[in-house]
Order: sequence, then structure tokens, then C-alpha cells
Amino acid sequence: MIPRYSRPEMVSIWAPETRFRLWFEIEAAAAEAMAETGLVPPEAARTIREKGDAAVFDVARIEEIEREVKHDVIAFLTHLAECIGPEARYVHLGMTSSDVLDTSLALQLTKASDLLIADVDGLLAALKRRAFEHKLTPTIGRSHGIHAEPTTFGVKLAGFHAEFQRARARLVAAREEIATCALSGAVGTFANVAPDIEERVAARLGLKPEPVSTQVIPRDRHAAFFAALGIVASSLERLATEIRHLQRTEVLEAEEYFSPGQKGSSAMPHKRNPVLSENLTGLARMVRAYVTPALENVALWHERDISHSSVERMIGPDATVTLDFALVRATSIVDRLVVYPDRMQRNLDLLGGLVHSQRVLLALTQAGMSREDAYRVVQRNAMKVWAGEGRFLDFLKNDPEVIRLIPESELEALFDLDYHFKHVDTIFARVFGA
Amino acid sequence: MIPRYSRPEMVSIWAPETRFRLWFEIEAAAAEAMAETGLVPPEAARTIREKGDAAVFDVARIEEIEREVKHDVIAFLTHLAECIGPEARYVHLGMTSSDVLDTSLALQLTKASDLLIADVDGLLAALKRRAFEHKLTPTIGRSHGIHAEPTTFGVKLAGFHAEFQRARARLVAAREEIATCALSGAVGTFANVAPDIEERVAARLGLKPEPVSTQVIPRDRHAAFFAALGIVASSLERLATEIRHLQRTEVLEAEEYFSPGQKGSSAMPHKRNPVLSENLTGLARMVRAYVTPALENVALWHERDISHSSVERMIGPDATVTLDFALVRATSIVDRLVVYPDRMQRNLDLLGGLVHSQRVLLALTQAGMSREDAYRVVQRNAMKVWAGEGRFLDFLKNDPEVIRLIPESELEALFDLDYHFKHVDTIFARVFGA
Amino acid sequence: MIPRYSRPEMVSIWAPETRFRLWFEIEAAAAEAMAETGLVPPEAARTIREKGDAAVFDVARIEEIEREVKHDVIAFLTHLAECIGPEARYVHLGMTSSDVLDTSLALQLTKASDLLIADVDGLLAALKRRAFEHKLTPTIGRSHGIHAEPTTFGVKLAGFHAEFQRARARLVAAREEIATCALSGAVGTFANVAPDIEERVAARLGLKPEPVSTQVIPRDRHAAFFAALGIVASSLERLATEIRHLQRTEVLEAEEYFSPGQKGSSAMPHKRNPVLSENLTGLARMVRAYVTPALENVALWHERDISHSSVERMIGPDATVTLDFALVRATSIVDRLVVYPDRMQRNLDLLGGLVHSQRVLLALTQAGMSREDAYRVVQRNAMKVWAGEGRFLDFLKNDPEVIRLIPESELEALFDLDYHFKHVDTIFARVFGA
Amino acid sequence: MIPRYSRPEMVSIWAPETRFRLWFEIEAAAAEAMAETGLVPPEAARTIREKGDAAVFDVARIEEIEREVKHDVIAFLTHLAECIGPEARYVHLGMTSSDVLDTSLALQLTKASDLLIADVDGLLAALKRRAFEHKLTPTIGRSHGIHAEPTTFGVKLAGFHAEFQRARARLVAAREEIATCALSGAVGTFANVAPDIEERVAARLGLKPEPVSTQVIPRDRHAAFFAALGIVASSLERLATEIRHLQRTEVLEAEEYFSPGQKGSSAMPHKRNPVLSENLTGLARMVRAYVTPALENVALWHERDISHSSVERMIGPDATVTLDFALVRATSIVDRLVVYPDRMQRNLDLLGGLVHSQRVLLALTQAGMSREDAYRVVQRNAMKVWAGEGRFLDFLKNDPEVIRLIPESELEALFDLDYHFKHVDTIFARVFGA
Repeated sequence: MIPRYSRPEMVSIWAPETRFRLWFEIEAAAAEAMAETGLVPPEAARTIREKGDAAVFDVARIEEIEREVKHDVIAFLTHLAECIGPEARYVHLGMTSSDVLDTSLALQLTKASDLLIADVDGLLAALKRRAFEHKLTPTIGRSHGIHAEPTTFGVKLAGFHAEFQRARARLVAAREEIATCALSGAVGTFANVAPDIEERVAARLGLKPEPVSTQVIPRDRHAAFFAALGIVASSLERLATEIRHLQRTEVLEAEEYFSPGQKGSSAMPHKRNPVLSENLTGLARMVRAYVTPALENVALWHERDISHSSVERMIGPDATVTLDFALVRATSIVDRLVVYPDRMQRNLDLLGGLVHSQRVLLALTQAGMSREDAYRVVQRNAMKVWAGEGRFLDFLKNDPEVIRLIPESELEALFDLDYHFKHVDTIFARVFGA
Repeated sequence: MIPRYSRPEMVSIWAPETRFRLWFEIEAAAAEAMAETGLVPPEAARTIREKGDAAVFDVARIEEIEREVKHDVIAFLTHLAECIGPEARYVHLGMTSSDVLDTSLALQLTKASDLLIADVDGLLAALKRRAFEHKLTPTIGRSHGIHAEPTTFGVKLAGFHAEFQRARARLVAAREEIATCALSGAVGTFANVAPDIEERVAARLGLKPEPVSTQVIPRDRHAAFFAALGIVASSLERLATEIRHLQRTEVLEAEEYFSPGQKGSSAMPHKRNPVLSENLTGLARMVRAYVTPALENVALWHERDISHSSVERMIGPDATVTLDFALVRATSIVDRLVVYPDRMQRNLDLLGGLVHSQRVLLALTQAGMSREDAYRVVQRNAMKVWAGEGRFLDFLKNDPEVIRLIPESELEALFDLDYHFKHVDTIFARVFGA
Repeated sequence: MIPRYSRPEMVSIWAPETRFRLWFEIEAAAAEAMAETGLVPPEAARTIREKGDAAVFDVARIEEIEREVKHDVIAFLTHLAECIGPEARYVHLGMTSSDVLDTSLALQLTKASDLLIADVDGLLAALKRRAFEHKLTPTIGRSHGIHAEPTTFGVKLAGFHAEFQRARARLVAAREEIATCALSGAVGTFANVAPDIEERVAARLGLKPEPVSTQVIPRDRHAAFFAALGIVASSLERLATEIRHLQRTEVLEAEEYFSPGQKGSSAMPHKRNPVLSENLTGLARMVRAYVTPALENVALWHERDISHSSVERMIGPDATVTLDFALVRATSIVDRLVVYPDRMQRNLDLLGGLVHSQRVLLALTQAGMSREDAYRVVQRNAMKVWAGEGRFLDFLKNDPEVIRLIPESELEALFDLDYHFKHVDTIFARVFGA
Repeated sequence: MIPRYSRPEMVSIWAPETRFRLWFEIEAAAAEAMAETGLVPPEAARTIREKGDAAVFDVARIEEIEREVKHDVIAFLTHLAECIGPEARYVHLGMTSSDVLDTSLALQLTKASDLLIADVDGLLAALKRRAFEHKLTPTIGRSHGIHAEPTTFGVKLAGFHAEFQRARARLVAAREEIATCALSGAVGTFANVAPDIEERVAARLGLKPEPVSTQVIPRDRHAAFFAALGIVASSLERLATEIRHLQRTEVLEAEEYFSPGQKGSSAMPHKRNPVLSENLTGLARMVRAYVTPALENVALWHERDISHSSVERMIGPDATVTLDFALVRATSIVDRLVVYPDRMQRNLDLLGGLVHSQRVLLALTQAGMSREDAYRVVQRNAMKVWAGEGRFLDFLKNDPEVIRLIPESELEALFDLDYHFKHVDTIFARVFGA
């Protein structure tokens, strides 16, 4: 996570101010839950809530205390007591630091999920708009980077839309994975704080109680969370790779938007580099890189060790901030992508109609020619086209073996792009709904 | 995937025989679907089905053809034609190889998922049985490898049960991710085979139609599948690590089952190594290693390139076979784990009762002592215990400052393990249901 | 490692026959070393060597014994005794299984390194030959996939040659990392076998003694080995990516060799897919994937645990066999790459000379024009070219502001490709030597 | 990279101030090199050097310009011109941004390497000191976490010393990998700046010229660099894991230093957690995580794309800062590690002498007993020890079958630890030199 690739909305989730505010929310909810069950005087819980709500936590002061006591939660509680006064003795009753830390991380990751889901929604909207705009814009479909058969640019984008619908579902599932609350004490036995307190606190915080926490919330949840982010990032890489390919000098079917004043655009008008998409490619590598340490974090020793902590202090912000930035950048790229239908058509025509050779082959066999003969006939005409001697359709029209079986008008129909687009409506209905 | 770490059930999913059988299933289903919609004579579809069902596909023969035509699907279709006769001309109509290959991979991964889910069910059963067996077996909970507070061995196992319930849910979700069917042609436009054929084939095969396939089923699905396996493997590593720790010479609270005749066990009776759990640890590393290439597979070029194929030919079997083997091995370890409650008790007592120091501290403050004083009092007694001079409870009973506030009987109650176990029922209800 | 992506030379290194032969070599060398120092009767060592050399170890028999004793080294030693007779009592004196296993792995990895280094040598030879062949074949250099400035295809290949020289050096270093011998006993103290025996055995086997082994050879060595393979694989991916790009329909500057009879080449003459290079891309992902588990293997517990073993049983063969196959495949691709200099020239000309705009800009400023004016002048001519109205040189010749400062002949010289190629000799001298 | 896990020395390498200073160094060296070859007036080069040396580059001002021109190097050059005046026209002649950026990164990574190597030197010194301190401190060697045979704590540390000697060599090699300079222009052809300028600049900067750069320095070099860091981090994890094990409550052979005033240490004197070593474990996961994106960076498109840039902006600082911090932390842990030789001895004795059973077995067979009989005899005595009935030596002394072959004094000698330590001098000589 570096400022260059960060948005303030996501960064703020990881700011100390946010963290301390969340810690307070957890402590206040615990006090209120205990008040409900008679463990804490109701007025004390009320005071805690009110004074805490009103307080501005002093990060520098907390850090100063931490340097002394070498414990972040104790430092915060000390400062909180300074804000709240004597009722502070009802704060953190029977709880352990991990109860606060892990529940707080759950809240941060939940908020981060919400932002990421909103990001994907933005990307989906952009993809949908552009997909409908280019629903029937013909373009060549490519396998192995080689021309295959025609498709539409809208179908390409619909495919990405479907993929990011899955990305959204994965983020929703990831959010659910980590939205749990632990208030279970030193080794998770609820020795000093009863399970119903955890349940009440969880409900107040919009979380579910963790069935079994062992001081910590089990880290398979977090592994699943970061793995989901890595998958979403990989889908972004596919999108970025597509655009990088389309913007190649020789292809140039689409370009990232290039602002009029952007340096160097005019003296070398061809030198508009897909730098944003290349950047996305790199960012995807980073988000993906955070998956493995998250997986390695799962096998904590016994009821917990703290090896996961340094990892999460880094990948918590790094993965969410980077993916957030990348999703928003991708949305902007898609939204403002400059599409060149003329160039798409020109590329489609590049091979003189050879992309229709399969259909001609099929038509010949359907008209009764043996597969071997059909292949031979198509081949000899195709080779002339490939040698640059003319267009496929023209050669076929002049090939007696062909024209004997397929009249000229039918032959032309074989070169009709609409043949390939007849199910675009169905594809769109599948992706965007009827 | 090597024989040493393989079970035949999972290996057979990846055998050529299975693959060709699945290819036939797809082709037969396609012919039947086309018969339903009038594209193929019903009797032809019937013949294809019947002769194909009866045929034993000759792997050597298919490989021989492949060496000639350098194309695996064509080789199979050629052999299939040899089995079926003239009706073979109704096979594979308008389809591309990828339709067969990707749908077939979906079927293999679906079957693999079913096995893995069954494996987890077996592990869950073993964990549950042992958890109830040791529901109230006291053991020390450890954070950082250091004694913290008492818990029960059953609670430990319940925590693993909860984790593997999540593992199961992840596998179910992973199965759903990859259970899709593509019959959409060269670039996914359904130019030569209509979407309703794909839908009918999907239904026959127990799959869902892929909303947009671009010759290939999008690889974010497979990435999600392999990521799920990596997470499950990491949970296995946590289980293995726990057992390895428990079996350490100095701890020895549990041991992997060691058959009476197993070499070397008696002359060095202490030298029973947790080799199965160590092996699980290594296998987990492997299953995890397959996640990254699966993520890298997502960004195929344009409508497809074939870079994913070599990866999947390897990690398809490698990841599923290894995880299957590891899950079954884990089940056997848990099932036959030799548990030593006496030793657990001895370790619990190792610190002369110091694990109760927190409770004593709390009781003193609740009895009115200032936190600072309470700390000082607990500390001076704790240090004597730590120095090996005696047991904590004895020192406390003889400390006037303590006994003044807490009568002896109450003091003894503070050392009562049941205090820590009072919510075990709740934990079990959460995990195993009421 | 699957047959499809394997070469027998490398596979055989990992065959049981090879493993048992290497175990024997270690045992025989140990007996001989002990004979030299008087620990074993010389004639016994001689008998061991002679009978072992003559023996054909029966893999099935050894596996049968292993099923009984559940220990691979003991099973082998038992069978070896069957081959050698009474002198077998001088075999394995004071040694532990790991002495044999780890030293044997070192020998396997050393042999694998030798093969890989030879593979790289083959690739280097192919790259060198093609580089000289195309030393001055003009081609457009591309940054961001966009035309930048001219270079030669030979320079491209020289760059890969330099990279694979580094790959070779990395493999040589990797070989040195793992070429160590351990004969140090149960925890590495040489309690039952003296260090000088280890030194003698190491010398006989062409290895160095491991300074401190703790039953096992430390796994940072193996991590370094597999990391080196991952880096080499990534270089292969760069080579494969270059070829995939060059073979794109719109670029088509080079193609993988396509045998005349290869199916489907003629009816769709454009449909020659760079499948070998795509395959290399996937194989690179796999070799890279094995790096992380090798890194995770380093932190074994205390003097050793056996978690590394299952990992190495898999990645030992998988990484070396796959990289070997990939290197040989890459060599074949480079060797037989079909290069199209005409097409390279056509692509170079695609932008009507705009790739020279930087040089014109520089020449104008050197001729005294202000940078701003020069930019404006170049821009207005460039935009006309970009709009498809003509060629850059023609417009410049007709621009009075240009021609006033740069006479026509000098202007033409600015479009001279040789300007860009004047240091090709130097580059080649750097890479291939003077 | 977060402040909590950062040291200012390494952080400063990545500060904008440092970066701009390095950019200036490169530009100044280029001007001087060009002055030497007559391309730039010597006095201009001198002015550039002097004014640049004297200037304090204004980061805010440069960033302001960058926001306008959207190009970091141009922004810097603009500001540099403000500092230098008219001679600025001799700056950056014929160079491209990447020449500056990649050479600057090489300088940063070189400096980072120097720090890391110094860190390892510090760790080596600490390990050596403690190794000699405990050269003959007996401790039990453990395989699989189970007692095996005696070793010394010094030998343990010597093993780590040997491993970090290799770590040092890897860092030296990594430094050499990335210490290259590129001044080769837009696609690496030296069209506008001759190779001898690159050579002169390289010499001035303490770098080697990159044989073939293609606008960028090839990224296999950086991959090798970050891979080396990942391996070193894994060795740190092994060290951390060892300490975590030794500090377990049941083992407690060593402890991280715990300052007298550190909170919570006395009321729960047992609750000294190896949090620093656990932290190292997590940090190692992170440094390792950066290896894969570095490997993925290698396959840039054609002469370059910019996907590597975002990755390196992150992992450049992240990997070096984190490893630097971790190495220094490890040094401090080793330096101040509290070692408990008594406890080591107690653990050694834990099994009543059973760790010597192998030696007894050997002695019995050497004294003429058959291996089967010896095994049976050792076993029956071992089982009594294992059952807690007494010490192994005592039982053996009273076993007529034993005492008949091995007199009591010889029997006692079999339990002599010195037998295991007789080659410690050799091991130390191997590791630390004669």
C-alpha cells in the first residue's frame, strides 16, 4: 500500500483513528451487553457510550502510553479511562486483548468488503453500459492470439460482466467469512465472560458470534478472505490483458482514454501506451501475492501464536487498498475506453475472409461433398488468399467445384456476420437478465 | 501426485479411461439433445448411446491415432466412430474440442469435489466422536506455546470440527463454481450450436450452462476451486501442527497410533515420531502451491489461449489426489489418536497452579484490593512457585494479605477447573447442534 | 510431472532403479572410506563394491520388504545384504538413514542440474545461431506493445542469449548449493561415524561435506535450488511470450514451425497457433509454483522433522522434469522458428515513418529551433500521418519550417535505419564475446 | 513496509529525497562521461555537478510539476533545470527515462544489499559469540520433536551460523545480480547515446554495464534478487521456530530476553511469550510472499511494458525494509537470548537415559550378542524405564544378560555425553575456521 495506488476511503479504514474508534465500539457494546444482563450498572454503560462517543481519541497520546506499557490494547484502555472517568472500571470486564483485536479486524475487513463490493458494482455498471453500446459491434474473436471467428465487442464485455458478477459473489462470501465476533477470553472457554455477552455484542456490531474461538478467531476465515481478493485481482488482470492487447499498434481496436493535454501524445500520436492496464497487471500480481502468507497464517500453534499479526498488519491494508484502487481504476478504464469499430472491422477483414473457411467447409459437406474433397477445395482457395492474391469469397465464386454445389448468393450468405451474432440476445439475456 | 500419496478412488477420476468415458457422455448427451430438437434423428442418438455405452474404449488405440493426428479429441472421435459406425456422423455436430474438454474437466472436478466432501465428512465424524469422548478431559490451553488457562481436549477438537465444517462449505461452493457446461463453439457465439442444446446437455450432465464461454469456460472458476483446496489444506496443516506439538517428548499429551509390530518402537519406546502429521504438513504445502498457478491461469489472452492446459493437466490430479489422500490420512490419525489424559493433567499441574494466577488477581480486586496491591501480592507468591519452592495455592493460603480477603475455601474454588468448563456445553451446542 | 511433459533422461534420474543405485554408491563409498581408515577390512569393502556393482537391484523385492518393515532404507539394506552376503555386516556402519537419503538426493539434484545446464547450453546455441542469422534484420522495437524505435531481430535474440547466460550461471550456482554430502549420524554430531569418513565419501561422490548437518542437510540449500529453477522458468516465459506476440495474426513476424502434414494447417492457413509457446507459459507457472513449498521446507523443527520429505518427493521430479522438458521445447522452438523479415519491415513501415519522429524532433532542436516550436512542427505533420493522409517523410519535405533547417538529404538520413543499428556490433560483442 | 517493522536506515533508501539524489548522480555522471568524450563542454559538466551537489531538491515542488506533466522523470529534470540554470540543456542528452529509473533502482537495491549484508554480519557475530559460549552445553537433539541423541547448544548455533554464512553469500550474489547500469535509449540500441557513455557512467556509479537492456534492465535480475531475500527470510523462520520451541513451557531451555519492567512478567512469571520470534515468523512469510510477483515480473512484453513498476514500487521497499528489520531483530534475540543449561540437562535426563539405548544396542552386538537378542534385551529394560519404574542404566546394570557382556564401568561409559561431543571441535573448525 503506497499513496500512489491508494484511495482515501479504503486507507481510512486502516487509520489508527478508525481502529481506536472500532475498539471503543466493541468495548461500549460489551458494556451495554453486560448492562443488559446485570453485570454492569446501566448508567455506567450509558456513560461509557456517551463519553466515548464524544471523545476524540488522541493517537499520539495512546502511542506514548504504548511505548511505556508495550501493549497496544492496554494503552488504548488507559487513554479511554482518561476520557471516560471512573466508569472505566466497567470497561473490558473479563475480556482479553484478542477479543478486541480480532473483532476489530473483523469490522475493518467487513467495511473493506463493503467498499470492494461497491467498487465491483461500479465496474459492473461500466461494463454493462459499454456492452450494450457495442452489443453488435463486430470484432474478430481470437484464440491463441490468432483470428478465429467473428464475435461482437459487446459479447466480449458481457463475458467480463459475468466474470465480475462472480467476483462480486466471491466478495460477498468473503465478507460473510470474516464477519464474526469473538468475546471468549484467554483460551476461548468463556471463563470470565459468558457466551451470551458475545452473542449480544455480535448482534450490536452486525457480526455473528464465532462458534469456537481459541483466544483468536480461526485464521482459515482470513485465508478465505484474502484468497477471494486474489481471485478478483486475477480477473482484473484478464481485463487489463485484453485491453493491452487491443491497444497494440498492429491491432488498435481500443485505447485507454488519453486526455488532450497529456504530455507527448501528439508528436508521437501512435505512442499512447496502455499504462493504466499495465499498472493493473502489476497490482493484480501484488494482491495475488498476499494469498500465500494468509494461507500460511492458518496453522497457528495450539490456542494461538502471534505470527499472523505482522502478516495481517501488512496485508490487511495492502490487499484491500490495492484491490480497491485497481477496481476503481479498471472502472475508469472501461468507462472511458476509446473503441474503434472501424479498426475492428478492418482487422476482421484482414485475412480476406479466411475466418469464414470453417463455415464454407461445413456448407460443402452439407451439400454432399466428402469431407476430404471439401477440405481440398477449401484449402486450395485459402492458400491463394493467404498468399495475398485476393479475397476468399472471390476465389470461391470462381471455383467450379464450389459453385456447382453452392450458388453465389448462398456463398455470400456464408460470409454474413449475422450468422455469428444470432444468439447475442440470448447471451445478453443470460448475463444481464431478460 | 505420486502413488505413495494417492488413493485409487481419486486417481481413477483422472485416468484416460474415465476421461474418454466422460467425453462420450458429453457427445452422447449432445446427440440426444439434438435429437430432442430435431437436429439429429432420434434413432441415431439412440444408437450412439447404446453402442457407446457398450464399447470399451481402447486407450492404446486412441493414443496411436493421436500420435498421427496430433489432436486428442479428434483421435477420440475417430475411435468412437470405429465403435459406433455410420451414426458417428451425428456425433460432435457443430461442436469444438473445447466444448468437450472443458465440460469434461468440469465433470472430473465435480466428481473430485464429491470425493473430497465425503472425505471431510469422514474427518468431521472422527473429530466429533473424539470431541465428545474428551469433552471434559482437562488440558492446558496454550498461547505462544506457553501455558495460559485450562480448556478441554474436547473443546480443542470442537474447534477443529467447526473449522472443517467451514472447509466442507468451501468445497461445496468450489464444486458449484466449476459445475458448468460449455457447448458454445469456437469463440462462444453459438454460431453452429444453439444455446438450448448447451442447456439440455448441461441438464443431462448435472451441470449448469456457462453464461458466457469464449471457447473456454472462464478460468476464474478454476482459480476459485483450487484456492478452496489450498484453504482446506491449510486447515489440515493446523490440525497436523497441533498433533505434532502434543506428541513432543516433553509434552506427550497425544500420539499418533503406533501399531504393535511397527519397527523400532520398543527398544526406543520414546521414539514414536509423528511422521503422519509431519507428512500432512508437507502435503498441505503442495496443495497450497497449486493455488498460484491456478490464479495465473485466469488471464488468458482474448477468447482463449492454451497456457492453462498444461497447468491443469498437472494440478487437476495433483491437487485433488493429494488433498484426498491428506484428508483420509488426517481422519485416520484423529480416529486412532492415542490420548493421554493423565499426561494432560500432569502438564496442567506443571506450574504449581500458576495458570490460575489471573483468577486470583481478579478475585483480590473484586474483594476490594487495589489492582496494584493485588498484582504485588500475586507476584510475590508466583515468584516463589516459579523458583520451584512449592505450589501456588499453598503459598496463597499462607499469605495473610490474601487470606484476609479470601477465605481458604474460596481460594480453593479459584483453582477449580470446572470454572473454566462451565460453558463447554454451549460451545458443543454451537458446533454440533443442540 | 506427467509423461506428456517429460523426457526420459530426466525421468530416469528419479526412477527407483537410479535411487537404489545411488544408495549403493553411497554405502560402497562409505565402506571404502572406512576401509581406508581401518574400520572395515579392505577385502570386505572390495566385496561390497564388486557384488553391488554386479547386482541388479530388484525394485519389487525391495518394495515387498518395505511393506513389511515400513522403512525404505532398511528395506534396501536388507535386499543389499541378500546380494552381497556376509560382508553386508560392514555396510551402513554407524550411519543413519538420512545420511543415505540426503546424500542421495544431492546426487540426484546434481545430475538433474547437469542435464538442465546442458539444456540451457542447447538453447544458448540455438539463440546464438538465430541471433547472428538475424543480426541486422530490422524490426520495430515495442514498448507497451506500441511501436517505439527500430531494432533488429538479432538484438532481440541477443538479449535472450544474455538472459540465458545468466540462467546458466544460476543453475551452476544452484548445483553447487546442493552438491553436499552428509554422513553425520542421528543429530549430526558424528557420534558413530567420524567426520573424516564423511569427507572421504564426499570426495568419492564428487560432493563437498556439509559443514553442519543435523541428521539432515539444511533445506535452505534446496530452497535456493528450486528458486533458481523458478527464475529460469520465468525467463522461458518471457521468451514464450515474445513468440506468442510475434505470431499474432496482426503482427505475424515469426511463427513456430508447423510441420507440413500437421492437421488443419491448410484449410485455415492463418490458424497456426503458437501452442508450444503457450504450453511453455503454463509449464513456467508450474516450475515457479514449486518455489514456495521449497521455501516453506526450510524451517524444519529442531534437528529435523520429515515435513520436507513429501514435498521433495513431488517437486524433486516435478520441477526438474518440467523445466528440462520446457528448455528442450524452447530450444526446438527457437531452432525452427519461422521468421518473416518482410513482415517485420512491413510492420516497421506501418506508421508511415512516425517511429522516426523523435529523431526529427531532436534534429530540429539541434538545428536551432526551440523545443516548443520543434514539437509543434513535428506534431502537425505527425497528425496528418496518423490520420492516414500520407507518409511522414513526405510531409516533412514539404514543410517549409522543416526544410529551411534540414535539407532534404539530411531529412532522409533521419529515416535511415542504420542510425539505429550502428552499435549492434558492440551489443553482439558484449553478449557473444569479441 | 509499516513503521512498526522498519528501520530508518533502510527506509531512507526509498525516500523521495534519496531517489532524486540518485537520479542526479546518474545525470551528473552521464554529463561527465559525455564531457570526457567531447559531447558536452567540460565546464558544463562541472557546473551541473557543482550546482546539483549544492542543491536541495524540493520534493513538494517536483511532485507539483509531476501532477502537471504526469511524468516523474520530466518533473525532476524540470526542477533540476531550475537548480542548475542554462547548463541544464546538457543534462539527459539522448537518454530515456528508463535509463535513469532502472539505474537508480539498481543503486537503491545495491545500497539495500549492503545494509542487509551488514545485518547478516551482525547476526553472524551474535551467533558465533553464543555458539562459543555454549560450545559444550549439553542439550538433547530432537528429530520429529522427539528426543533423539545428545548434542550441544553450541552445535545448534553453529548450524545456524553456517546457514547464515550461506545467506550472506546469497545476498552478495543478489547484489551482483542487480548492480548493473543501463544507458541504452528507447529500445536499447544506443541510437542516441553510445555504449561507451554507459560504460563510463557505470564505472562512476560502481555498477557494471548491462550487456543488453531493452529500454529496461531485464527483470530476471530482480527476480533473482527478491528470491534471495525470500530464502534468507526462510532461514530466519527456522531460527525463530527453534527459539519458539525452546521457550515452550514444557521445554523452556531458552527464552527471549524479557526486560525487568516489561508488563505482566511477574504475576504470571511463566507467561513470557516468544513474541519476537513469532513476529519473525510472520515477517518471513511476507518477505517470501514478494518472491512470486518478482518472478511474474520477468516476462515483460517485447522491449518492455510497465507492469513491473507498480510491483517494484511496493516490494522494493517492502521486502528490503522488512528483511532488514527482521535480521536486526533476530540479532537482538540471539544476542540476548536467555539460555538455561540446567533445564537442558533436565530435559536430557527426562527419559531416564533412554536416549542412550541405541549405543547400548550397538555395544551389545559388538560384544557378540545377536542383533535380535540385543534388541530384545534393550527393549525389556527400556520398557520399564518408559513405564516410569526407574533409570535405564540401573536396570541394565542389574540385567545378567547385559552385565555378562559389558562390565559396569563400560556400561557407564556408554552413557557418557562426551562420546557425542568428541567431534564438536571439528564442527566448529568447519564453521568458524581453524
